[in-house]
Amino acid sequence: MGVKYSPMKNKLAPENLIDRDISDLRRRSARTLRVTVPAMEKILYRRFPVLDHGFVRVVDYMGADESVVQSARVSYGRGTKKTSDDRGLIRYLMRHWHTTPFEMCEVKLHVKLPIFVARQWVRHRMSSINELSARYSVLDREFYLPDEKVIGVQDLKNRQGRGSILSRERAQSIISILRDDAARCYDHYEGFMKGEGDGQSEPLARELARINLPVGLYTQWYWKTDLHNLLNFLRLRMAVHAQYEIREYARIIGGIVAKWVPLSWEAFQDYRFESATLSRHELNVARSLASGKRPRKADLSALSGRELRELADKLGVGSKRLR
Amino acid sequence: MGVKYSPMKNKLAPENLIDRDISDLRRRSARTLRVTVPAMEKILYRRFPVLDHGFVRVVDYMGADESVVQSARVSYGRGTKKTSDDRGLIRYLMRHWHTTPFEMCEVKLHVKLPIFVARQWVRHRMSSINELSARYSVLDREFYLPDEKVIGVQDLKNRQGRGSILSRERAQSIISILRDDAARCYDHYEGFMKGEGDGQSEPLARELARINLPVGLYTQWYWKTDLHNLLNFLRLRMAVHAQYEIREYARIIGGIVAKWVPLSWEAFQDYRFESATLSRHELNVARSLASGKRPRKADLSALSGRELRELADKLGVGSKRLR
Amino acid sequence: MGVKYSPMKNKLAPENLIDRDISDLRRRSARTLRVTVPAMEKILYRRFPVLDHGFVRVVDYMGADESVVQSARVSYGRGTKKTSDDRGLIRYLMRHWHTTPFEMCEVKLHVKLPIFVARQWVRHRMSSINELSARYSVLDREFYLPDEKVIGVQDLKNRQGRGSILSRERAQSIISILRDDAARCYDHYEGFMKGEGDGQSEPLARELARINLPVGLYTQWYWKTDLHNLLNFLRLRMAVHAQYEIREYARIIGGIVAKWVPLSWEAFQDYRFESATLSRHELNVARSLASGKRPRKADLSALSGRELRELADKLGVGSKRLR
Amino acid sequence: MGVKYSPMKNKLAPENLIDRDISDLRRRSARTLRVTVPAMEKILYRRFPVLDHGFVRVVDYMGADESVVQSARVSYGRGTKKTSDDRGLIRYLMRHWHTTPFEMCEVKLHVKLPIFVARQWVRHRMSSINELSARYSVLDREFYLPDEKVIGVQDLKNRQGRGSILSRERAQSIISILRDDAARCYDHYEGFMKGEGDGQSEPLARELARINLPVGLYTQWYWKTDLHNLLNFLRLRMAVHAQYEIREYARIIGGIVAKWVPLSWEAFQDYRFESATLSRHELNVARSLASGKRPRKADLSALSGRELRELADKLGVGSKRLR
Repeated sequence: MGVKYSPMKNKLAPENLIDRDISDLRRRSARTLRVTVPAMEKILYRRFPVLDHGFVRVVDYMGADESVVQSARVSYGRGTKKTSDDRGLIRYLMRHWHTTPFEMCEVKLHVKLPIFVARQWVRHRMSSINELSARYSVLDREFYLPDEKVIGVQDLKNRQGRGSILSRERAQSIISILRDDAARCYDHYEGFMKGEGDGQSEPLARELARINLPVGLYTQWYWKTDLHNLLNFLRLRMAVHAQYEIREYARIIGGIVAKWVPLSWEAFQDYRFESATLSRHELNVARSLASGKRPRKADLSALSGRELRELADKLGVGSKRLR
Repeated sequence: MGVKYSPMKNKLAPENLIDRDISDLRRRSARTLRVTVPAMEKILYRRFPVLDHGFVRVVDYMGADESVVQSARVSYGRGTKKTSDDRGLIRYLMRHWHTTPFEMCEVKLHVKLPIFVARQWVRHRMSSINELSARYSVLDREFYLPDEKVIGVQDLKNRQGRGSILSRERAQSIISILRDDAARCYDHYEGFMKGEGDGQSEPLARELARINLPVGLYTQWYWKTDLHNLLNFLRLRMAVHAQYEIREYARIIGGIVAKWVPLSWEAFQDYRFESATLSRHELNVARSLASGKRPRKADLSALSGRELRELADKLGVGSKRLR
Repeated sequence: MGVKYSPMKNKLAPENLIDRDISDLRRRSARTLRVTVPAMEKILYRRFPVLDHGFVRVVDYMGADESVVQSARVSYGRGTKKTSDDRGLIRYLMRHWHTTPFEMCEVKLHVKLPIFVARQWVRHRMSSINELSARYSVLDREFYLPDEKVIGVQDLKNRQGRGSILSRERAQSIISILRDDAARCYDHYEGFMKGEGDGQSEPLARELARINLPVGLYTQWYWKTDLHNLLNFLRLRMAVHAQYEIREYARIIGGIVAKWVPLSWEAFQDYRFESATLSRHELNVARSLASGKRPRKADLSALSGRELRELADKLGVGSKRLR
Repeated sequence: MGVKYSPMKNKLAPENLIDRDISDLRRRSARTLRVTVPAMEKILYRRFPVLDHGFVRVVDYMGADESVVQSARVSYGRGTKKTSDDRGLIRYLMRHWHTTPFEMCEVKLHVKLPIFVARQWVRHRMSSINELSARYSVLDREFYLPDEKVIGVQDLKNRQGRGSILSRERAQSIISILRDDAARCYDHYEGFMKGEGDGQSEPLARELARINLPVGLYTQWYWKTDLHNLLNFLRLRMAVHAQYEIREYARIIGGIVAKWVPLSWEAFQDYRFESATLSRHELNVARSLASGKRPRKADLSALSGRELRELADKLGVGSKRLR
């Protein structure tokens, strides 16, 4: 897997509020006795663009690979200090699902994202969120319009996914309809709040004016979670069956984690993200194959057609071997 | 406070899936040794309408007032059994924020609600949710249109609320715009999934087709939580500063809780919902007033203008007394 | 795996409070429209003995296999209703870690257990607990004494486990010391609370009198959790590396779950408890073996000695094959 | 309330592991762009003694008062930036139970504490813990012995508390018994693990050897939580009805929080810790008194005897006024 992150492109105008904040924040620095990660200091506060208007930026972090190690070692007490090196211990913890040491690192992100992505994101309950409120604030005129290259048809097998890409013409026609509808809804939203339309000056309550805004509109929030829960988020949201749009956020955040806690990230990839779980019957089949025998009928018939295909894929064998 | 719930009106046609399910489910019954609440059995599975297309229905429940008592008593062990009666104990627990016994009751609701209400609701993390997925399913053509009588202007003092009601003409004009925009977005949504618009038959992926659906569209979910967390939800969402739409859901659910655990509900109202907390300085002022003295300058000046107004309101005294 | 549960032996005298409660509770029954599991009704309130003085009993439950299915189906909406049968859907959910539908079932247990077991148990945070308080109550004179047959030496490889069983003589000597020390500490505890020792009658505060009670003393609590979190608990606590004593509780609870939600339990065993996860490099090795090739050097050398032994075990091949 | 913290007394010998770690850790420092609190840097890693052998030390922290403000402001969006000052906003958030901004600060403590205190502490589930494991490690020979001055009798009214202090003679006799029993249990624990007692050299498994260790023995852990949950912990554990021993830990941690986030701490004291909640009927009584009227019979009779005494206390009036 090649999780990479794009370097921040400073595509916003200098008068933009957030960018001014960023330079202000990056100017101030202080000495600290806390665990510090130079690679995180480099990217702190900076924006990593995602999709057409979104971004992710690290606002704060606590801990590093060595914090995972330190917390794990309190369990073992004295005397084990020298024996295991940090990388080995982190890999051991990841492999055996000793999850609490990974809870000892924390990160706080500022994210701008479409509402429908936010709705998937909040399912990860073990985190803290402060989101921009449409009851108080006027939302920005920014809505997600998918790039032509990612507009796919409904996948018939994977019932939640998208399949082959649409023709350029049809994609452009869809984008054009989406743009017009979103613009019209936003115009009316603004109009409601201006009190336009009947000469009156009294603005409609914001909490009502917004009810026709599309779920593709961008919102933003501060999101804080610990490394254990963040890796869970990434395992599910970087996976191929996650919706493309949230996968883009996960990809960028994965790149940040790789800088922050490189040893934990490597262990996560080896033992979690690129691992495969074999069920009881799959394991029996794998054992037969590994010993050069034919799989037992009982095991094969316990597996559904879909499981058989997936198993062939996991073990890199032709599906004929699984008969 | 008068939390009431509307009796279920069977406004859906008999061919409606959910209503058929309800009669099926209500026909089957079984003997159980579990704690059972007759008032909950009466309403089980039935729909309580909320707003224009929403509803709440109880799908399952566990425990009753006596379960709260039973769990509290394990803390006290033998010998205290006779002393305190159930009502007294429940009131004691509520008053002193002994919250774990209230966690011992659980309820599971099926709710149909606008997306923007769902977005406020999920902030209550200590709960379990299964929501209809717009990646798998085609959403119903149902969107929230506020009643004329609840369309208010932006409140200038309470920056998140709505103030006086708009004129009927302007309200109707707003509703009409909302209806048209929502209908147009929904038509395009359907069109995208039919592959309409360019003669092709390939439907656009559902997960993309939906990105212009408005946040006023209805979704539905199963929501399960325990009584302690449910009361927290109600305390915040039945309060006057909660948005009207979610308050309607809270009001209906409050009516259900009143049937389910009447003693806990009464204690909740007395000690939580209709209680008031006085800060350190407010308490000092209240003490002075209760003893017939003038409040001390130091205490009054520690309170902001807004706090002074709120305190006058809490204590039912004229604001002149607080000078 | 053969998780069995022992039938309840009624070894407590009839005057015992809990047993009287049980017969009272089992006498009362009511009709309910809720989902009901006959096999759970049979065991409701009854005690399943664990270790020398402990027990587990089901006090309440909510939901069944069909509740998992019902909640999963809300995600898919209309139209998928007939297609997949319940067992298939439950297996699908378990296999793909769709965990929220399993959160929709809830169970409440009354457990009597040694304090050191309770200390391991509370690490499972997603649950509700009401425990007997030693500040209010006088604890029973019951402490855990391990059976001769489970008294093992410190395992040198598995640094947290126990190895071969001690000689009968040494085991008896250890038990005898444990019994004497626990009895002496308990006698002093009682004495402190009687005000004994200096002719005075004023009892020492219970919260202080208890500070020398051993961690082998029995406590009790109500513990409530959902099926998803319960299965997590069982996966970790039924595993061989869990301490024998908590494993005994997990074994009994596993037997209860098998009665309550047989389809979920079967899926749990196939896809979770008796599954194995292969890391990235292990998977590469398994692929080579399944295709009758020699594993690649790069993959073998990425695995530690311990991982190689475990992999040989998982795949049922001699360790020579992994060179 | 005067929460103070004792300056660290370096009572451990220089060869002590932890103290060596502390000086090592305090020698290394780095520049950071993160929010930094000079007062926390001063105490980082240092030990604050608690009880006879316990301590608390800050191992890491994230955020400051300004982080609370920053997260709250994302909700309000543009334009409100200048209006409210930080102190005012923090007080507003605390007063109105807007809790998520306080979740944005995080702290990680290393704590040494008696097991019975640890058992109360873990009831706060919203936190991460890595505790020394008695299955892996040999526990230190350190057990809590209460100071003569805090050994009280069982309180008869407050059934969970301690009342007047015992005579010096009786206190000394109790301490002496506690010391002897704990020492004997510990000696046997050590003996078991040496294989003593029958000439054999095979040590008993640690997980079994420890089952007679008293709940007064010290354990240690890393504990990480956010500011919101930490303030909840302090509100409950600094309160007079909390057991003295855990209150001592809360007192020290309170002193640390005062240094870390002084504005939040002040707001916590004013609006939470030194506030009082009046129930519906108490509020009615307070209103009558504030207006110079006699309380209504209906309100007085709705209050229990205990509530009346507590109300008199809250309002600083004689109990005669409440008739």
